[in-house]
Amino acid sequence: MKMSFEDNIRRVVPYTPGEQPDRKVIKLNTNECPYPPSKEVSGAIRDMDAGSLRLYPEVACQTLIRELGNYYGVDEDKIFAGVGSDDVLSMCFLTFFAGNKAVIFPDITYSFYDVWAEVYRIPYETIPLDYEFKIRPGDYKRENGGVVIANPNAPTGVLLEPDKIEEIIAANPDSVVIVDEAYIDFGGKTALPLIDRYDNLIVVRTMSKSRALAGMRIGYAFGDRKLIKYLNDVKYSVNSYTLNTPALLTGAAAIRDREYFEEITGKIIKTREKTQKRLKEMGFSFFGSSTNFVFASPPSGKTAKEVFEELKKRDIFVRHFNKARISGYLRITIGTDEEMDALFDALEEIIK
Amino acid sequence: MKMSFEDNIRRVVPYTPGEQPDRKVIKLNTNECPYPPSKEVSGAIRDMDAGSLRLYPEVACQTLIRELGNYYGVDEDKIFAGVGSDDVLSMCFLTFFAGNKAVIFPDITYSFYDVWAEVYRIPYETIPLDYEFKIRPGDYKRENGGVVIANPNAPTGVLLEPDKIEEIIAANPDSVVIVDEAYIDFGGKTALPLIDRYDNLIVVRTMSKSRALAGMRIGYAFGDRKLIKYLNDVKYSVNSYTLNTPALLTGAAAIRDREYFEEITGKIIKTREKTQKRLKEMGFSFFGSSTNFVFASPPSGKTAKEVFEELKKRDIFVRHFNKARISGYLRITIGTDEEMDALFDALEEIIK
Repeated sequence: MKMSFEDNIRRVVPYTPGEQPDRKVIKLNTNECPYPPSKEVSGAIRDMDAGSLRLYPEVACQTLIRELGNYYGVDEDKIFAGVGSDDVLSMCFLTFFAGNKAVIFPDITYSFYDVWAEVYRIPYETIPLDYEFKIRPGDYKRENGGVVIANPNAPTGVLLEPDKIEEIIAANPDSVVIVDEAYIDFGGKTALPLIDRYDNLIVVRTMSKSRALAGMRIGYAFGDRKLIKYLNDVKYSVNSYTLNTPALLTGAAAIRDREYFEEITGKIIKTREKTQKRLKEMGFSFFGSSTNFVFASPPSGKTAKEVFEELKKRDIFVRHFNKARISGYLRITIGTDEEMDALFDALEEIIK
Repeated sequence: MKMSFEDNIRRVVPYTPGEQPDRKVIKLNTNECPYPPSKEVSGAIRDMDAGSLRLYPEVACQTLIRELGNYYGVDEDKIFAGVGSDDVLSMCFLTFFAGNKAVIFPDITYSFYDVWAEVYRIPYETIPLDYEFKIRPGDYKRENGGVVIANPNAPTGVLLEPDKIEEIIAANPDSVVIVDEAYIDFGGKTALPLIDRYDNLIVVRTMSKSRALAGMRIGYAFGDRKLIKYLNDVKYSVNSYTLNTPALLTGAAAIRDREYFEEITGKIIKTREKTQKRLKEMGFSFFGSSTNFVFASPPSGKTAKEVFEELKKRDIFVRHFNKARISGYLRITIGTDEEMDALFDALEEIIK
């Protein structure tokens, strides 16, 4: 057979991001925040010196990391920052899962985990959630090369209690356990304090949801300083300067504004509770959400796929995953009260 | 032996970026542009709607890629964008060098190439430059899993003639050949037109040097649409949303301003020529630079390391690589005429 450069290509089935329609629609499909970022963020942009952009950004992201350290009460050398939590998680996979044993995570979870495992050629196994979409800690007490838990889980929205998270971490002293807390700010209890007691724990966060900064691509992680050092070594081997100057400045500004953060997350939680009540009345079934989205199955009569398509025709975008066990569900981001009212009206029409 | 998560850690010797001193110094150590970015860039920042940052940035970077397509006269599906050319190159290594044969590049070149090969476990071999720090095309006519050429080369600054670049590309139809043109805008002739004739060619660029946007982290690549598709597949498997909204907007703005680009690159070339003349008078030896830096060896009496240290004491930062064959050289970024005059004064003092 003739050789060709095609033989050397890494072939992957990439993650499919949610649609980003060009025109104005009701966008409840990518778990963005319905409220604008803090006024501190617009201030940081207004005050930014364009001339400074000729220089590389801070290689150690200190402006952002200092602020995160203050806010969370964590030493700066226990914090890592990246271009969204996807970049942070991808670096974690590359750094911590370089062995030959299978990394384990739930069968239904953030759909990037198996994509990263594939692209970096990391062996992995998925472990089924139980019939209520819950993680059973006992399932994670087996030989493995690493553990990844999204808490609350995505796209289910289901939260695992803190003692069960700790049970998994404690049962795996010989593996790095990643707890992906992208949605923790919507009512969950963080595993963050555990980093001081477990040297195998990495807690990952994003500013894309609760900080309303998806457009800025900022994620971060906490962990034992040794783990953070390994992570930085790999980061410096892939791309030394990752977060650009506007991301560092606006990220720090957003973190400073605790009051606004509490205001918007509080509003989203309130709208979520109303949304769940209303969906229940309409006959949707779901397990309670601890996130800024609900994962709900429509009442019989219409399939989730059909409801998804019908909503789209009405310029309301939600997310549907054509995947075993969850193809009967819709993932609906919590928007403003007005956006949710428009959704309810459309759903009434579609389901009737 | 007891198992531990340490066994699964990917251990690397990371690239060491140039120092980024906190205080005001004469900074000639990381090849940044001494002039601010285009006024179009400050305009784009001023006009940016902070509210829009709650939404994810464009997944396909179309705002930037459309502008690049217009500017360079290249179809949009032949263009890829990333978080600096380091991100672009790193994705290229991951995508195109997934085979078992050794990727080849010069022994003296951008020091990230072997770092990426190490982190992604890509076999590689380095090929010595000739005694004039020139690449000999004949050396690249051998079995390989890929070829990487920086042109002009770094940190030498030496340009390879376009016909010799083409000779290497043509000799390797079964390998992807990456031509890293980070410094091409300072007088070199680009290999870009060759992408229409060779389906194995990727040409990589950055906005960190000639566009004065190091702080924004923007790089891009051109190639056959099939190669760009493979690259995007891997990109979407690592991090779907990479360039943030400010990077897309300011990158497009910078590209639009051709006049300013020509003005500042012209000024840098003029200062470089004066700098080379002056260094020659002082007894420095070097091969002619086609970049925004010079790579020069001080006259006998003081070692490059000593001159580097002496300059640092005077708050003038240049770069010294403690590496075989090049430890006798200093890499000096071309600054403003005033900065170079301060450098010359300091060098006169040090060398005397």
